[in-house]
Amino acid sequence: MMNLLPVKLVTIVALDSLSERIVNDIKVCGSKGYTISAVEGEGMEGKHFTDWEGRNVRIDTLVKEDVAIRIMQVLAEKYFEKYSVIAFVTDAQVMRKDRF
Amino acid sequence: MMNLLPVKLVTIVALDSLSERIVNDIKVCGSKGYTISAVEGEGMEGKHFTDWEGRNVRIDTLVKEDVAIRIMQVLAEKYFEKYSVIAFVTDAQVMRKDRF
Amino acid sequence: MMNLLPVKLVTIVALDSLSERIVNDIKVCGSKGYTISAVEGEGMEGKHFTDWEGRNVRIDTLVKEDVAIRIMQVLAEKYFEKYSVIAFVTDAQVMRKDRF
Repeated sequence: MMNLLPVKLVTIVALDSLSERIVNDIKVCGSKGYTISAVEGEGMEGKHFTDWEGRNVRIDTLVKEDVAIRIMQVLAEKYFEKYSVIAFVTDAQVMRKDRF
Repeated sequence: MMNLLPVKLVTIVALDSLSERIVNDIKVCGSKGYTISAVEGEGMEGKHFTDWEGRNVRIDTLVKEDVAIRIMQVLAEKYFEKYSVIAFVTDAQVMRKDRF
Repeated sequence: MMNLLPVKLVTIVALDSLSERIVNDIKVCGSKGYTISAVEGEGMEGKHFTDWEGRNVRIDTLVKEDVAIRIMQVLAEKYFEKYSVIAFVTDAQVMRKDRF
């Protein structure tokens, strides 16, 4: 009999140059692990599609709900106004909650 | 007090050679941004596992529900019969809905 | 009128050196397709963040619920104690269930 427990997956897409700062912020918020992968992206600036400058990264971290909320708040305060940072939260399930 | 709003994450896996056409289609459907990353994949053809030919890409786009449904319909009409295109929709939450 | 059907997305993060074994295990569990992409990761060992050794991979597979549970059980039995393998399950929706 398996015991699946709910956690939150927070996914952040940002310029590679911001990744070190963002990783530090999510650790301060309580993240205990993350993955980073290279992505290319394109987004809307006003009414025109524009390539984001430089290489982008996708950061994924599995966290408890309160940590997810803290991460979103910190990202909103520090990045959303100034940078093309995208972040979203997804419900996920894991076997053991304690590690996250 | 944080305001998390529901959006849909549409994820598409396809041959790299199709990515330009698919990106154009998701824009026409109403997507305002996306990321692309390189993936390797393997899928079933009949009863045998076969490597998909060439390099594959994973396209992710955060959109409103009606746009997600339009994207899935267009993919079904144009690609699912002819190509090894996989697409799925996940529920996600963002801070500000207006950008998607 | 579109027919979206629920499936499970199982995501596994592991050392690249384990990927062949894990892919074989998920096929035995009933997975009919998967993608692999390269990721960098960092996780907690005790109270310290440590880079995972070597290159890591992220494996994603869309499966029915019973297959997802089997995969999680096999991963728990074979990997979770010995290796830094992370796995989580997300709810997703697809157009045609039969292929997964």
